[in-house]
Amino acid sequence: MTNHSKKYVIGIDLGGTKISTAIADSTGHIIEKTTLATGAKDGEFHVMNRMISSVEQVLEASGLPLQEVAAIGVGAPGPLDADRGAIITTPNLPFRNYSITEPLVQRFGVPAFLDNDGNVAAIGEWLFGQGKGCQNLIYLTVSTGVGGGAVLSGRPFHGSTSNALEVGHMTLDPSSPHRCNCGNYGDVEALCSGTALSKRAMEAIAQGRETSLSKHRQVTTYEIYEAYKEGDPLAREILTTSWRYLGIAVANLILTFDPDVIAIGGGVSRIGDAMFEAVRASARAHAFEFMVDRVRIVPTGLAQDTGVLGAIALALVRSQEGALRESAPKE
Amino acid sequence: MTNHSKKYVIGIDLGGTKISTAIADSTGHIIEKTTLATGAKDGEFHVMNRMISSVEQVLEASGLPLQEVAAIGVGAPGPLDADRGAIITTPNLPFRNYSITEPLVQRFGVPAFLDNDGNVAAIGEWLFGQGKGCQNLIYLTVSTGVGGGAVLSGRPFHGSTSNALEVGHMTLDPSSPHRCNCGNYGDVEALCSGTALSKRAMEAIAQGRETSLSKHRQVTTYEIYEAYKEGDPLAREILTTSWRYLGIAVANLILTFDPDVIAIGGGVSRIGDAMFEAVRASARAHAFEFMVDRVRIVPTGLAQDTGVLGAIALALVRSQEGALRESAPKE
Repeated sequence: MTNHSKKYVIGIDLGGTKISTAIADSTGHIIEKTTLATGAKDGEFHVMNRMISSVEQVLEASGLPLQEVAAIGVGAPGPLDADRGAIITTPNLPFRNYSITEPLVQRFGVPAFLDNDGNVAAIGEWLFGQGKGCQNLIYLTVSTGVGGGAVLSGRPFHGSTSNALEVGHMTLDPSSPHRCNCGNYGDVEALCSGTALSKRAMEAIAQGRETSLSKHRQVTTYEIYEAYKEGDPLAREILTTSWRYLGIAVANLILTFDPDVIAIGGGVSRIGDAMFEAVRASARAHAFEFMVDRVRIVPTGLAQDTGVLGAIALALVRSQEGALRESAPKE
Repeated sequence: MTNHSKKYVIGIDLGGTKISTAIADSTGHIIEKTTLATGAKDGEFHVMNRMISSVEQVLEASGLPLQEVAAIGVGAPGPLDADRGAIITTPNLPFRNYSITEPLVQRFGVPAFLDNDGNVAAIGEWLFGQGKGCQNLIYLTVSTGVGGGAVLSGRPFHGSTSNALEVGHMTLDPSSPHRCNCGNYGDVEALCSGTALSKRAMEAIAQGRETSLSKHRQVTTYEIYEAYKEGDPLAREILTTSWRYLGIAVANLILTFDPDVIAIGGGVSRIGDAMFEAVRASARAHAFEFMVDRVRIVPTGLAQDTGVLGAIALALVRSQEGALRESAPKE
């Protein structure tokens, strides 16, 4: 019996605060979904058990038999070892060099695959979002941090240690005074992330700069964008500077990958048109226009459930690869 | 009859000044080689005829029958359309949207493949040089200009329009005063190429800076490196600045591709150890050390014949793909 006859997959989005798990059919249609608190402080054994429980829950709620499940896909923050299905270490989860996939395989007797959340989101975008049918897609998430993933030549790309597309830490401006948590100065995350936008605003307020933003206790991307729309000069300066840099990052990715699509998701990207226009203009100014103009630089097509749809996509792609290998002619 | 039974391939390295053509066996061993002047000013028809003549010459000199040739590979400067085997336009060659491969197929009745010189060099490095057996390799050439190519997940990577790895035009420092021929400021070519090194030296001499370099009429990378070894402060400043930037480019490529190998060729790279040490140190300062430390950042393994070996590698890889497709089970 091959995987061809199995019609469903399960996707698990393992985050620092919650575990989202869903069972879906081969078109990515979600049949049942559940969300549990990760409870990271309880340690690896308990978090692993919650992942297992979440799978049991969606199976039971869907009424589908385990025999119909082709694979389980897990998306998690890296760095990780995708070949071994293991998380090496990550700030917000208790796992230390711990195989996530082994306990899943043991409990459910179904192939399980792990990949980092950026790669998984790229696979989801490619199967179900803006990248349907394209050969080369780059996915960027611009949120608290900045991450990414890629599908290249029609296949998910991981690099040699599953750490490809660490876009957030690419240096954009080595003479910038802005330092990233990673220690680097002037990288994409230090210049374009939600964290960077807040910092820029708080620093300017602390320096006594006049701005409508000073009325807020906490300034996030939301307040900055609201102030920008009302014409606040500081908000405008902060956003246009960060968009210009994001456009340089996009230009560098276009020159590097020559892709069909660059899809951008994450909280900061919800600003929408104003941001996308500025990013496109900056990309055109920093790469060959003929290369930029043919790339679709677009918001993610997966507004909700990005993480879990990505994990579902991972399960679908990897189980199909497995099925193809099984049916391939033997040498 | 499949390509499996054909044991030889022909590679053509089409450059602005010369055409180098060789016939080789499947291990890349060159049996006969010839070099002709391109004569670009004579127009596309004559250059095309010289390419055809060069193939006839190596065939005749080798005494091998055309029936034993599996494919012809051509490496040429881009931008080009690899699917159509056409050069779109390029500064030093007369071709304008002209298929290079069609006349070769017509004349010799053998499959012919075109790819840009950066991609072709990467394939050569992967088959015959520093990348043997690895999954992910980036090739950089640092010469008059800066270019590159990649083999990803064990397959040559082209991007969607054969223009991937335009590494020379990636922005490294948007506030730099140094402008590239492409119009961009602070890109890799404007900061790290041989052209950039000469410019920096000539500018400093024109500004009256004291240096042993002022005795030369023309200052190339060679003179700068000689002066550097003798302790000239200007030469030291020029080289260390450019190596630091090249290290940032390498760091960004490691964060993007998570490769096994970054091989660097081209005239400027012949400086050797001093350059590679500086580049490695800068890369470690600008990317996660655990990612940099596992990448082999090394001089090209193809000291001579890079271009023609790349074209040979292209012919081998593409004809094997063709043979695999022919022998694949039909749906």
